Amino acid sequence: MVAEFISVGTEILLGNIVNTNANYLAVKCAELGISNYYQVSVGDNEERLTQTLSLALSRSDIVILTGGLGPTQDDLTKEVTAKVLQRKLAEDPRTKERIKSYFKGRNINDITENNWKQALIIEGSTVVDNHNGTAPGLIVKTEEDGGRTAGRPPYVNKVVILLPGPPNELIPMFENEIAPFLSKLQPGIFYSEMIKVCGIGESKAETMIQDIIAVQSNPTIATYAKSGEVHLRVTAASDSIKNGKLLVKPVADELKKRFSTAIYTTNEKENLEDVVVSLLAKYHIMLATAESCTGGLIAGKIVNVPGASAVFGEGFITYSNEAKQKYLKVRKQTLIDYGAVSKETAAEMAFGAAAASGSKASLAVTGIAGPDGGTEEKPVGLVYIACTLNDKLRIKEYKLKGSRQKIRDYTVIYALDLLRNAIIEEFGS
Amino acid sequence: MVAEFISVGTEILLGNIVNTNANYLAVKCAELGISNYYQVSVGDNEERLTQTLSLALSRSDIVILTGGLGPTQDDLTKEVTAKVLQRKLAEDPRTKERIKSYFKGRNINDITENNWKQALIIEGSTVVDNHNGTAPGLIVKTEEDGGRTAGRPPYVNKVVILLPGPPNELIPMFENEIAPFLSKLQPGIFYSEMIKVCGIGESKAETMIQDIIAVQSNPTIATYAKSGEVHLRVTAASDSIKNGKLLVKPVADELKKRFSTAIYTTNEKENLEDVVVSLLAKYHIMLATAESCTGGLIAGKIVNVPGASAVFGEGFITYSNEAKQKYLKVRKQTLIDYGAVSKETAAEMAFGAAAASGSKASLAVTGIAGPDGGTEEKPVGLVYIACTLNDKLRIKEYKLKGSRQKIRDYTVIYALDLLRNAIIEEFGS
Repeated sequence: MVAEFISVGTEILLGNIVNTNANYLAVKCAELGISNYYQVSVGDNEERLTQTLSLALSRSDIVILTGGLGPTQDDLTKEVTAKVLQRKLAEDPRTKERIKSYFKGRNINDITENNWKQALIIEGSTVVDNHNGTAPGLIVKTEEDGGRTAGRPPYVNKVVILLPGPPNELIPMFENEIAPFLSKLQPGIFYSEMIKVCGIGESKAETMIQDIIAVQSNPTIATYAKSGEVHLRVTAASDSIKNGKLLVKPVADELKKRFSTAIYTTNEKENLEDVVVSLLAKYHIMLATAESCTGGLIAGKIVNVPGASAVFGEGFITYSNEAKQKYLKVRKQTLIDYGAVSKETAAEMAFGAAAASGSKASLAVTGIAGPDGGTEEKPVGLVYIACTLNDKLRIKEYKLKGSRQKIRDYTVIYALDLLRNAIIEEFGS
Repeated sequence: MVAEFISVGTEILLGNIVNTNANYLAVKCAELGISNYYQVSVGDNEERLTQTLSLALSRSDIVILTGGLGPTQDDLTKEVTAKVLQRKLAEDPRTKERIKSYFKGRNINDITENNWKQALIIEGSTVVDNHNGTAPGLIVKTEEDGGRTAGRPPYVNKVVILLPGPPNELIPMFENEIAPFLSKLQPGIFYSEMIKVCGIGESKAETMIQDIIAVQSNPTIATYAKSGEVHLRVTAASDSIKNGKLLVKPVADELKKRFSTAIYTTNEKENLEDVVVSLLAKYHIMLATAESCTGGLIAGKIVNVPGASAVFGEGFITYSNEAKQKYLKVRKQTLIDYGAVSKETAAEMAFGAAAASGSKASLAVTGIAGPDGGTEEKPVGLVYIACTLNDKLRIKEYKLKGSRQKIRDYTVIYALDLLRNAIIEEFGS
């Protein structure tokens, strides 16, 4: 089954809101094993919405429209859908009562006339109650004979679902009513596993698995690039979760073999900082950070993990040379001889952070994030990351490119990955 | 002129990423006075992308495609565009050199073969260099005679723009090359001024200007909400910049009167941390930070401003009570009597950070970012922000709602705004 999403609203086209509904529906349909080939945003315009809906009905099995169900003149999703499907609109007494009680519950007594527009429903549709707003959702199924006996346009066995635009109304309606409805339509399931890799670029990652991708049919592998990371999703279409797992397993196992320790998790919901905090917690390691060019972003990532306080007590942002000396005991001579951005300074920062805080592990970063401050010898993007674990030092040099922001983002990821690898080497995963 | 956006990428259809590019392009085109009627997301699929692009060319003047320009086999935006426009692909030596030097700058010597695919450009297109990645952008203009003399399909005077999908590559390319190019296509001008407000919610801001919005025609006011901020853009359609300015001025003046000191800038390109760093620099104030629940994010924002080293030397991430005592000299009794999340602790953290670093100004934050750790008396979202400036303390209590991430994001903005207001009150703007 293929679903298409139509997000209706001029506010999307003007950029006033980000269309998060399409993303929400995409995630939910993928979970249900329903394919999504097109997402379209269109304004509150009769002609263009008519064309968009007609096209969607010609190429997709399920069309989910969001937005444009409200009380104002602008809102015409329901009216256009009724016209395209050649069905009438009629007032639904039960919905009218629900709207009345919705306003009553909010102590609003003079309900403006336009609100009753929301009680109109499309002939032959199923009403989906909205417990967080006034506009109901609607499910319309077209006839098996394409409505020919009723003199309607030839849309055979299509499903059109109309949902309100505000996410706090749409999401509960989808979870409670629409998802169970859709799961009954879909024969078979999609089963997928995720493999998240760090420290390997997207094109290198693809080259490493080119031979598998070239011959893939079921399951398929999709790769997604993030700053410093690549995520690989292996998806199988099958008749049951159990058989889906059997299809995915050999491919996932091969990927695990090839990417080996570069894989930091196979858990969809886990990110790199989650993994690092879990490893620290597992081996009872306290971490201290000492940051120059990243200015607190590594600590910020760590602290974003709920429960980080068990493994992280303190961090230093030592932007100036004085601060590096004062808190981390970086030697003045080191700064003079090698400079603030050097392997030697990074090492002393890391040891200093561990010593000052009494932590088993430390991460230190010094670099030139730009746009100024680079020289030929030490260009913008030169970054040193040092990690100590039980007094053992690991250090890496990077020459990164891009904006100040990008250099800092990559540095944070590489630093967390250095620590992750250090813990695994010392203690196991 | 009407622009249509096509976001290419199966990761959008699977819900792996939110399509923020369409929103970005919508905002930018609205600013340029270019209408947007359709936004379509489609997967990395030749047939469906071909249909989508052909339809877009039939109904819009400008088609902006984002994504699918990378080195992998999946990426076929350029190939499909060339086919639809019946133009050849040929290697661009300059782009090949740029890609080489991009990798060289990263010390990557074994460039995988698939990367050279990115040096292929569409016949007759203009190359837009990508300074933050490998794939270049392309601008293709179709012929005035619809290419009939060249035997091409009848697309008359259309503009097709191909841009890379990652926002950190797309945005600089759009700002520097595409926006100036598009503004020349658009007859007449749109002149706009920006007013950025902090510390007032979106709905309150809208209520404050409801009367102006109700009767607006030219100029118009558009509001955009960001974490803790509201941006108001006043835009006039006119025949010249000079007349546009005259139209915008009375409305902008009225907004300035109403929002007064809540306005932190009227400069489009300036953000809150830029303003704070400028103010600190102007009055030769050194800042120190002491962060608990934000874990380094305030310092991270400050350090993101180029040249921050002139006003920021050091920061403390004191996540544990011990660190608060050790580095900031928060008294043990204060922690016992009032708790780590209290006005009293926040104040001692701020004074402690200023004293330890010898800084004129300090910002300190302590709070409960959740999801756990809240009590009835001190719920998740309770945050104290303390600021000292020349030993004068300012302190604010917030009860924020939302996810851990959201609470931290808002806290960072409110902290920077507290410092901004303190400096202005003491020294002037």
